[in-house]
Amino acid sequence: MTFTPNGKAIFNETIASGYPVLCRTVIYDDSETIDLDNVPLEGGILVKALVLSVDPYFRGLMAEKTDVPGFVLGEPLIGYGIGLVLRSSSPAWIAGDNVYGMLPHQHYAVLPSSNLASLRKITKLSHLSWAAYLGAAGMPGLTAYSGWKEYALRDGVIASAGSDDKVDFVKRIGADVAFNYKTEDMDKVLSEHGPIDVYWDNVGGKALEIALTHANLGARFIECGMVSVYNSEPYGVKNVHLLYTKHITLYGFTVMILGEKYLDEFLAEIPPQLASGELQHMEDLTYGLDKVGDAILAVQKGDNRGKAVVVVAEE
Amino acid sequence: MTFTPNGKAIFNETIASGYPVLCRTVIYDDSETIDLDNVPLEGGILVKALVLSVDPYFRGLMAEKTDVPGFVLGEPLIGYGIGLVLRSSSPAWIAGDNVYGMLPHQHYAVLPSSNLASLRKITKLSHLSWAAYLGAAGMPGLTAYSGWKEYALRDGVIASAGSDDKVDFVKRIGADVAFNYKTEDMDKVLSEHGPIDVYWDNVGGKALEIALTHANLGARFIECGMVSVYNSEPYGVKNVHLLYTKHITLYGFTVMILGEKYLDEFLAEIPPQLASGELQHMEDLTYGLDKVGDAILAVQKGDNRGKAVVVVAEE
Repeated sequence: MTFTPNGKAIFNETIASGYPVLCRTVIYDDSETIDLDNVPLEGGILVKALVLSVDPYFRGLMAEKTDVPGFVLGEPLIGYGIGLVLRSSSPAWIAGDNVYGMLPHQHYAVLPSSNLASLRKITKLSHLSWAAYLGAAGMPGLTAYSGWKEYALRDGVIASAGSDDKVDFVKRIGADVAFNYKTEDMDKVLSEHGPIDVYWDNVGGKALEIALTHANLGARFIECGMVSVYNSEPYGVKNVHLLYTKHITLYGFTVMILGEKYLDEFLAEIPPQLASGELQHMEDLTYGLDKVGDAILAVQKGDNRGKAVVVVAEE
Repeated sequence: MTFTPNGKAIFNETIASGYPVLCRTVIYDDSETIDLDNVPLEGGILVKALVLSVDPYFRGLMAEKTDVPGFVLGEPLIGYGIGLVLRSSSPAWIAGDNVYGMLPHQHYAVLPSSNLASLRKITKLSHLSWAAYLGAAGMPGLTAYSGWKEYALRDGVIASAGSDDKVDFVKRIGADVAFNYKTEDMDKVLSEHGPIDVYWDNVGGKALEIALTHANLGARFIECGMVSVYNSEPYGVKNVHLLYTKHITLYGFTVMILGEKYLDEFLAEIPPQLASGELQHMEDLTYGLDKVGDAILAVQKGDNRGKAVVVVAEE
């Protein structure tokens, strides 16, 4: 029997308010080992983590009071990831398969048979990285794709982002107008370039309030996330009465529900376009499972430049 | 030439905050007269006001800062009303017709030819009052009808109202659960009887926040009005993030846009059901054009018991 070190990123402490705290909210624990050849599978599969996604929504799962079931204290974080199947006792999987789905933040894990239905077998296109399959070709890409297909039409595009780098990127890929919502006067930008017919909201808070002010009659707001309020006190949106005065619809959606409808279409269309370069994307890679806490904090502060992915192992 | 007194309810002062003020916000002016036989019509019609509607949305048109064009200072209020055509110079109308549409709060008015397209000829069912045509068979009824048809399905009904009388009424006509949102603990009621799949919002503010807390996954909120905030400081809704965590849609709508789609269906279906008693409704009648200001304040405070209508004249 050979015992291999099996480090994991553990959820160590809930957050009462503010940002995650390094070395407290999440800690790296390398005290355990695993016998890769003999660990019992009981219908499940043994998976080696390759890349793990770090996403803004993590913050909600770390709060003292969560709206949905949060991370479990003392257990590894769980999130979208891609792994390599080392051994299988399920007829649906064989060693060498690549698996996409919810993986624990741990080098090696046995995924029980009850979890296998939610996992997807994945074949990498040669010009696309594994990280891309957690970003533009993964859950965040499917979020954008399904929300856009379901709710939006577009003509001109006004884009906002939380750093000048990101603003430059969205300008380069074709936004008609782009601005930094943290440093520029959004009200002024929209006075000049608005009104808005479609608003894709990942920021929430004050920005949402300003966007409602500049909404056109019959506007559609796609409510996908609100990163501006994850680490601060709740922001009270004071002009929701504009919903009826302007006949506005707010479509709150989660890819967990909507994504299924567009999944096949998305997989057929988007990864090849990313591989060919027709669609552009950015990745922000962090190397090492022990750096998950750093990656989480960077995402909450908006310091990442592109989709944040933790590279755990080369295949 | 005979000159007939032609009193009018004039918008006299905008409201900075709080409730309308009697004898200041709206004043009754009886200084003018009109020559009913000889006033020039120039393609328009001369109308005698019979009943005028007083609605919660009036408050928005009286504010210092309005989202839509407000009432004009020094001019009569304008709102839904029913009148009798006394003389006509339009081929579409004859003396004796009854007209439904936007009427000035004035005993007699010449409606210019440019306004006639927005007016509707109306024939009263014998068992229905003119006031009913401003309530359940008029704009408020069409609001409920079109919003419900467009956005809602229902199973059980939890109703809330702002007075015990109104609560009794909605219980009597079949609500499964009914409560007074001003005096009872809404959070507790919804904890017991929720979650909510469809929320019809005419209250806004804190009640909306509580409703979002008790919304089911995939709930639909029909945003029709927010009377709780018309006369107070704007209320900041702090849990709009629940829109995406619960996949909730907020449909803001105004009958000015949606009503057209359902108007024919509504007119064919609802007035006969009201006349036969199959549908029940309540009217709160105020007699005299000089009492418009009182009726407006009562509606804002929720003191009315049923649809507020000012009866100006018997036919």
